[in-house]
Amino acid sequence: MTPSQDTETIAAKAAAAAETVAATPPRDRAAAILSVADAIEGDVDGLVALAARETGLGEARLRGEIARTVLQLRLFADVVVAGDYLDVRIDEGDPAFVLGPRPDIRRYLVPVGPVLNYAASNFPFAFSVAGGDTAAALAAGCPVIVKAHPGHPGLSRRTADLVTAALAAAGMPDGAFQLVEGDDEGVALLKDPRVRAASFTGSQRAGRFLADIAASRPAPIPFYGELGSVNPVFVTRSGLAEEGEGFVPAFLASVSGSAGQLCTKPGFVFVPAGHALDGAITGAAGAIGEQRLLNGKITAGYDERRRAVLASDGVRVLAEGGVRTDEEGEGWATPTIVATTVDALNRNGDRILDESFGPLSVLVEYDDEAELPAAAEALFEGSLTATVHAADGESSPALRSLVRVLSERAGRVLFGGWPTGVAVTPAMQHGGPWPATTNDSSTSVGTASIGRFLRPVAYQGVPDALLPEPLRTSNPWGVPQRRSAAGESEHWGHALDSRD
Amino acid sequence: MTPSQDTETIAAKAAAAAETVAATPPRDRAAAILSVADAIEGDVDGLVALAARETGLGEARLRGEIARTVLQLRLFADVVVAGDYLDVRIDEGDPAFVLGPRPDIRRYLVPVGPVLNYAASNFPFAFSVAGGDTAAALAAGCPVIVKAHPGHPGLSRRTADLVTAALAAAGMPDGAFQLVEGDDEGVALLKDPRVRAASFTGSQRAGRFLADIAASRPAPIPFYGELGSVNPVFVTRSGLAEEGEGFVPAFLASVSGSAGQLCTKPGFVFVPAGHALDGAITGAAGAIGEQRLLNGKITAGYDERRRAVLASDGVRVLAEGGVRTDEEGEGWATPTIVATTVDALNRNGDRILDESFGPLSVLVEYDDEAELPAAAEALFEGSLTATVHAADGESSPALRSLVRVLSERAGRVLFGGWPTGVAVTPAMQHGGPWPATTNDSSTSVGTASIGRFLRPVAYQGVPDALLPEPLRTSNPWGVPQRRSAAGESEHWGHALDSRD
Repeated sequence: MTPSQDTETIAAKAAAAAETVAATPPRDRAAAILSVADAIEGDVDGLVALAARETGLGEARLRGEIARTVLQLRLFADVVVAGDYLDVRIDEGDPAFVLGPRPDIRRYLVPVGPVLNYAASNFPFAFSVAGGDTAAALAAGCPVIVKAHPGHPGLSRRTADLVTAALAAAGMPDGAFQLVEGDDEGVALLKDPRVRAASFTGSQRAGRFLADIAASRPAPIPFYGELGSVNPVFVTRSGLAEEGEGFVPAFLASVSGSAGQLCTKPGFVFVPAGHALDGAITGAAGAIGEQRLLNGKITAGYDERRRAVLASDGVRVLAEGGVRTDEEGEGWATPTIVATTVDALNRNGDRILDESFGPLSVLVEYDDEAELPAAAEALFEGSLTATVHAADGESSPALRSLVRVLSERAGRVLFGGWPTGVAVTPAMQHGGPWPATTNDSSTSVGTASIGRFLRPVAYQGVPDALLPEPLRTSNPWGVPQRRSAAGESEHWGHALDSRD
Repeated sequence: MTPSQDTETIAAKAAAAAETVAATPPRDRAAAILSVADAIEGDVDGLVALAARETGLGEARLRGEIARTVLQLRLFADVVVAGDYLDVRIDEGDPAFVLGPRPDIRRYLVPVGPVLNYAASNFPFAFSVAGGDTAAALAAGCPVIVKAHPGHPGLSRRTADLVTAALAAAGMPDGAFQLVEGDDEGVALLKDPRVRAASFTGSQRAGRFLADIAASRPAPIPFYGELGSVNPVFVTRSGLAEEGEGFVPAFLASVSGSAGQLCTKPGFVFVPAGHALDGAITGAAGAIGEQRLLNGKITAGYDERRRAVLASDGVRVLAEGGVRTDEEGEGWATPTIVATTVDALNRNGDRILDESFGPLSVLVEYDDEAELPAAAEALFEGSLTATVHAADGESSPALRSLVRVLSERAGRVLFGGWPTGVAVTPAMQHGGPWPATTNDSSTSVGTASIGRFLRPVAYQGVPDALLPEPLRTSNPWGVPQRRSAAGESEHWGHALDSRD
């Protein structure tokens, strides 16, 4: 499909589809989402080959990403059928309500309307055309317009064809899903009053530019931007001792996987001074072959950041690595690992502390674990993740304090393991305080992400026949309904009373 | 208490209190909130007298508002103890997870940090110092800074004294609650990086000004502004016949209650042509005595809007009413009711269709009920409420279509009754699409409003002893925990499979 570049038509089609998409019964909506999953699963080989060519990402990684994308769609089909995401609340009419008679009030969450989703470059499936935000928005009952990432245009079109055909075959209206290409087109749609929410995964610069547009519209809309992250890791002395020789290979695998082009790549790893890891790091990094970078813009940005880090005061090079551009214009990189100290970062960290989007990480040496909470507080703004490696059973006051500081600065706090690899589950949180995201009330991975495309509406005294299905007493969709019973209000405010 | 006007100190105190307030166990936090309710209830006579003097609102109305404010606080104490607002989700570690082994992941909602709450003029209790957003933010575990409304400065200080003393006696830290006065101070705090969310009830102009500041900060924060609403009412021919003589007095009571200075005042009432209500309206409006307006700014604004409406083409005056300013500078108003037609509004409605904040309402005559959905769609942007009066059992296609259109444009859709009077309950929704609010994903009334002051954090593989209490397997706070069991993922995507 070559998408129509007429943004006026695209917005009109999305708006025209909104009512029908919203009104699709849950089993039909779930079936449509499952048919998208089936269509992608039915073309894995072709999609992976196309993605590999356009992004340079490895085949195993891409196959894993497709599996995740398909699971994500299927999981959202279940969410739609389960219906608890609707948060149905029913206050029974109550003549004895403590502030005077209360009418019957019923509230649930409705789809916001057309959603504009800016695809990312680094996850050509899971954060692109049929990725998490598309799955969540379709599950919520919203028409979706995906702004394709120019890094994988052929794959974007082919995926869009599959999605469009699957939705049409499942009876969803024309306009339920559309693809658009071009930055100007993306901006025009973000400004269109018919677009009611937007999501984005990409750079801080582009994300902030778009967030500002969303906020300054005559009628502002929610903008969920994920902008990148440095993902600090804090390793205690005992934790390092316990992990032993396994530490360095796992660290380097996390730094260099997908050529370091993951939002959750560990950018800073705090280790005790005297760690004696230098040789192992130099050796392990040197054994990792050259990997292709996603595109020329990322190559140039990474090259510049890498040079800045290497040229910073107080930096010791453990693995110099490199970046080069081949005769076809493709960028290639090998891992760069440097070491510095907490003191050096405190004195002179500005140049080093930004995200380096590529296979680079900074070892940060500390003298005393008691420094770590203050260092975390002083050095980092919001991140998607923050990781702690401690020994089994370790529980010092500094460690407790560190966990608290990290939970203020990150959307996900991990113990052990590495932050790359994000499970798609009900409890996942992929988000975090600015500048990790433009809006940290939300997640872009996991079932909770459906909430970003919903808004509440209450119905007061509306006859059952005129109520939306999920609010009817007969409950034809079979969704969970939370009731506040008549007569209950006289007990309000007594939750602390003794029941003896 | 004369609040400190040093915004730097205020922000620093709020930030310093944040950790302690957030960590307060639920029963202690609930007890603190209940003690605020008790303190207000213990001073009702004094508070009402002060409020009556400063706002001109009637005593019965003010007593009702205090009762609501006290109930609101007590209800939030229950919410804190119940703990379901935390949305605890636990994914059990799962070696058989379909995408590869999954660690234990636990997610819940944490307080955002210091909240800045701009008080409203028209609800000196329920949307002011100890009002809904203060109750919700304290319940969420956030320190609160209230920007006092200058319309009731003495009452604001006295209420703040009660709140501060009650919280201190309950063991909450200094800085858990603070009052600030002055527009410049309010703006300085909104720009302060330590403030993490803001809420506002007031005019569209002021709300948009503040929302733009919140969005353009170096680190943007959520801003929940409620900006006003025209609250259209649609009366079918059969509905009007069924209500008979009761219709006009109820309409006028809703328009003139609190001198029309309610966000939910019905501003436009669609009635069938030939309604024969003119005489009854003129009579009922004429019988309503002069009422004081809240302040000079509101008087001037209302006077200007009323003149514009009266001077508009196609307007027939049913009750001219009036506005005057007395020798002490207080404004006084009697109800103004005019009639026009759907055609006239479609042709020339711009001047009439804005909110008139005072006792003014516009009867809009239609020829055919089938016109109503399109009229609702064409004439109105977002409103807090939209109301339908239909006969018992009435269910025409036009009525169904109208309900759908209204649910896209309002946060609360009512059948019968009038939109003024907002119950404080679990299912209440007080919000709506722009320009009713700056952010329609939220409510400012009812227990769901706690969500605006929370953000999610996930903990992955964190030892039980280092987890926050609500996420521990031992569950010391006794909160609801939703589990995704190990082994479950192989069933994902099969919700539509036949179970036979």
